[in-house]
Amino acid sequence: MSTVLHGGPDASGVASHDFSTNGNAVGSCPAVLSALRAADAAHYPDPHYTALRSRLAAFHGVTAERIVIAASASEFIHRISAAVAQGGGRQVWLPAHSYGDYERAAQAWALQTIRSPQAYTDAALRWCCEPSSPMGQPQANLRQQAASTNGACVLDLAYEPLRLEGQASLDATQRDRVWQLWTPNKAMGLTGIRAAYAIAPEDADASLVQRIERLAPSWPLGTHGVAMLEAWTGEEAQRWLAQSRQTLKDWKTRQRAVCESLGWQCLPSDANFFCARSDRPYPDVAAALRTEGIKLRDCTSFDLPGHVRLGVLPPASQQALKQAWTSAS
Amino acid sequence: MSTVLHGGPDASGVASHDFSTNGNAVGSCPAVLSALRAADAAHYPDPHYTALRSRLAAFHGVTAERIVIAASASEFIHRISAAVAQGGGRQVWLPAHSYGDYERAAQAWALQTIRSPQAYTDAALRWCCEPSSPMGQPQANLRQQAASTNGACVLDLAYEPLRLEGQASLDATQRDRVWQLWTPNKAMGLTGIRAAYAIAPEDADASLVQRIERLAPSWPLGTHGVAMLEAWTGEEAQRWLAQSRQTLKDWKTRQRAVCESLGWQCLPSDANFFCARSDRPYPDVAAALRTEGIKLRDCTSFDLPGHVRLGVLPPASQQALKQAWTSAS
Repeated sequence: MSTVLHGGPDASGVASHDFSTNGNAVGSCPAVLSALRAADAAHYPDPHYTALRSRLAAFHGVTAERIVIAASASEFIHRISAAVAQGGGRQVWLPAHSYGDYERAAQAWALQTIRSPQAYTDAALRWCCEPSSPMGQPQANLRQQAASTNGACVLDLAYEPLRLEGQASLDATQRDRVWQLWTPNKAMGLTGIRAAYAIAPEDADASLVQRIERLAPSWPLGTHGVAMLEAWTGEEAQRWLAQSRQTLKDWKTRQRAVCESLGWQCLPSDANFFCARSDRPYPDVAAALRTEGIKLRDCTSFDLPGHVRLGVLPPASQQALKQAWTSAS
Repeated sequence: MSTVLHGGPDASGVASHDFSTNGNAVGSCPAVLSALRAADAAHYPDPHYTALRSRLAAFHGVTAERIVIAASASEFIHRISAAVAQGGGRQVWLPAHSYGDYERAAQAWALQTIRSPQAYTDAALRWCCEPSSPMGQPQANLRQQAASTNGACVLDLAYEPLRLEGQASLDATQRDRVWQLWTPNKAMGLTGIRAAYAIAPEDADASLVQRIERLAPSWPLGTHGVAMLEAWTGEEAQRWLAQSRQTLKDWKTRQRAVCESLGWQCLPSDANFFCARSDRPYPDVAAALRTEGIKLRDCTSFDLPGHVRLGVLPPASQQALKQAWTSAS
């Protein structure tokens, strides 16, 4: 039984005010919900996902050959780590703080992990994420990373569709040099749907691409995953997403003010979540908060002890947090 | 781009009379459909699937620790193959004819494959399937396989819930000695849902189990996969399944008669599908049949050239096959 720590539902179910995940708190995208309702799960999907790959390729302005369908971001993280290990890679470079699955997959394949500020030059696989997790900040040196020809560089773009501030560090040409990993379920407010895709670099190492394909399970996506990814590329979903970013921006300003009123130090963030150093350690009050339906993400597993990460939630949830924290303290 | 051959939808979509897959042709199980409609995909599933694992364990009368959740049968096939390779395994044993993913996963991990009638005694991983695919027959020597302590033995039970004739070779005690792989989406008539689970043997090699867990992606199942697996264990779904087997039995008798009327030789089968040697090679008429909405599964990739596999479909589809085959010949 795995003991990996994740945000989101736990054995007690879904918390009423779940600040621990980074999904779009405005709700589930109506265009995707209607695609899900129309989805017919009676048949296998096309095992080659021909129509879906064309659609994703057109959305990103790349050729369909570059689209790699994945069961989830985590599945792709494991798969490319395995493919790098198979190719004789030994070292994986990670940002100073990052999503635990990068390291977990590296360890599962006995790859040595090194972290920033250690140099990335010898790594066979480099993980970048912008806006980063857990901080929601730009990735330092991302342009140099993208320009480097040593090893494979993956840019995890899970939070780019939920960017509320700042600018991406890479332009389209620079992005074409890295593996892009897209996971629209957070932006679409549907984290219960497992589906992701990667876009291979324009000059991808052909043997690495081949290994990644050989390691793919058959039909990585089910009907509902296909429906979400198709709807995600549509105008209706993208318009809804743009509107939801406006709402989240407003909620974020209020939420930071609530945290500051509790005496917390909020760190800067470009995304729909941010980290804060709370006035007392979260683990001491986590159980009391959970009974009030409130869950935060402790940042110890991100190597940021004393900090919590908070997804931006509606003002009512923010008030619930303020009250519960004040009573628990 | 993968060139693996699978039954089911192709680039032209879903065939009207698709004999090429083995899903339950009676339709989609109403209890699962209603669970799917009620599923709320707005949240991550519990990453440990605690409730689901308990439910599956109770259904099978085993402890919850033995349940391994998988994104799909294919994902488990790749994962256990990788885990065996990591443990120093070198050889994988396969039945004379079998599902292509067993071999494909072995090749992806540079494991040598040997096939029956070669001896299985030195293999680190052995694949069994009963009722078998593509023939729907008992697996030869299954009792000896289950009793053998050399390497890991996986029994693929994808078609057991759709068994229309015969008896399983193993009793419950014998089954407890092998890895059981369950994929209810075929029986539930919902092959568009990706979800599966394995039951570890009672005396499973602890280091193999640990490697299998370490290689698991986070949240292998989405909301819809969880909903299907939960509903599958319920009385309503099991009652519907038992009724649908009665219908399929009747259809199967008629379908074999239709094939024989075309001059085909039908092979024996215990399942909701069977193989037949057609009076002329299927590849010669496949394109003409496909334009009439008819698709069969050529058995060349199963090492059975000259044969087709047919899932049992309703009488109207059988008549459509008869007409189209007669006009094409």
